Amino acid sequence: MAPKYKLVYFDARGRAEPARWVLAYAGVDYEDHRIPKDQWPTLKSTAPFGQVPYLEVDGKPLPQSLSLTRYLARQHKLVGKDDWEAAQADALVDYVQDSLKPLMAIFHEQDEGKKSKLKEAFVKEQIQPYLQGLERKLQENNNGDGFFIGSGPTWADFVVVVALDGILGMESTLLDKFPKLKAHNQRVHELKGIKEWIAKRPNTPM
Amino acid sequence: MAPKYKLVYFDARGRAEPARWVLAYAGVDYEDHRIPKDQWPTLKSTAPFGQVPYLEVDGKPLPQSLSLTRYLARQHKLVGKDDWEAAQADALVDYVQDSLKPLMAIFHEQDEGKKSKLKEAFVKEQIQPYLQGLERKLQENNNGDGFFIGSGPTWADFVVVVALDGILGMESTLLDKFPKLKAHNQRVHELKGIKEWIAKRPNTPM
Repeated sequence: MAPKYKLVYFDARGRAEPARWVLAYAGVDYEDHRIPKDQWPTLKSTAPFGQVPYLEVDGKPLPQSLSLTRYLARQHKLVGKDDWEAAQADALVDYVQDSLKPLMAIFHEQDEGKKSKLKEAFVKEQIQPYLQGLERKLQENNNGDGFFIGSGPTWADFVVVVALDGILGMESTLLDKFPKLKAHNQRVHELKGIKEWIAKRPNTPM
Repeated sequence: MAPKYKLVYFDARGRAEPARWVLAYAGVDYEDHRIPKDQWPTLKSTAPFGQVPYLEVDGKPLPQSLSLTRYLARQHKLVGKDDWEAAQADALVDYVQDSLKPLMAIFHEQDEGKKSKLKEAFVKEQIQPYLQGLERKLQENNNGDGFFIGSGPTWADFVVVVALDGILGMESTLLDKFPKLKAHNQRVHELKGIKEWIAKRPNTPM
């Protein structure tokens, strides 16, 4: 019998969105549970490690966004064809996390002037070497005309595209100098399951 | 034929040490390549994603410390008995990374007075909820008298202990209030392979 999945997070894309893409692409039913912000203080003590997102699989909890997304990807054949490809996908996912580190400071900055300066430094400077790294990595596989690893999509493609979509919201020309990455973004958006999910998902600011 | 491993990092424990513990526990030969700091600017462009550590497996590179450690763990049966245990190990590893986030600011602080205040806040306050979380998690498995996941050691035990060893270097009483975690630390240190590695490894400040 298929396991019963419940994904618990806030009413946001954020750290839960790559898992939702894995489930959407795999065509798997699940409960997309979105905690109202005002209930979180009460619910925090019941969450594993006191954190969200977490995934329940037949009632058993799995915390940590990347770990639960990787788990779902593994259950639905989205980790590449062997351990080596799975490791390459993991490394790409971690590289994307590295690239996003400056976002925390932007998120926490209260002064609007400073926030806007931090944003500019991020999109114009800090993210640029990572975009070059991603463009190069993509190019190395199938001349950049497919996906990052092996012959089909992996969860790493979803992690990249969800992250870049977020940054494109800050700077719409972000990928103009990275043609392979830009085409890859579109390719992933058009995948069966993903396309339908993006059309129907709740419209949230983050 | 057994693959040929070369682990490339600085002359430090740092982000490469958990991988070295996996290899030590598995009893696997490898080249522990330590780049002299002054050669790094020249070598950076040849490293995958421009980063260390990376692992070469029969000459093919795999970047990102956690990804390469997980890969080595998977090759040597240190990821638990099934996908669920592997995911629990992943989540524990990510939780440890969360707990270490304040260390970057400490590392980069140049003012000795401020550095020492940041260190105190880290060991006395910031790390404490994570230590409680780890003690509880350990307790849930075999009453805390074994390892974190399943019936034997996984790479997550190594990641926890390497991280806590680093913090114990800042505050030697760190684990006194966490008896299960303290006993686990000793248990992992005594494992065959680990014990010998710790006795013979290069003596570096980090």
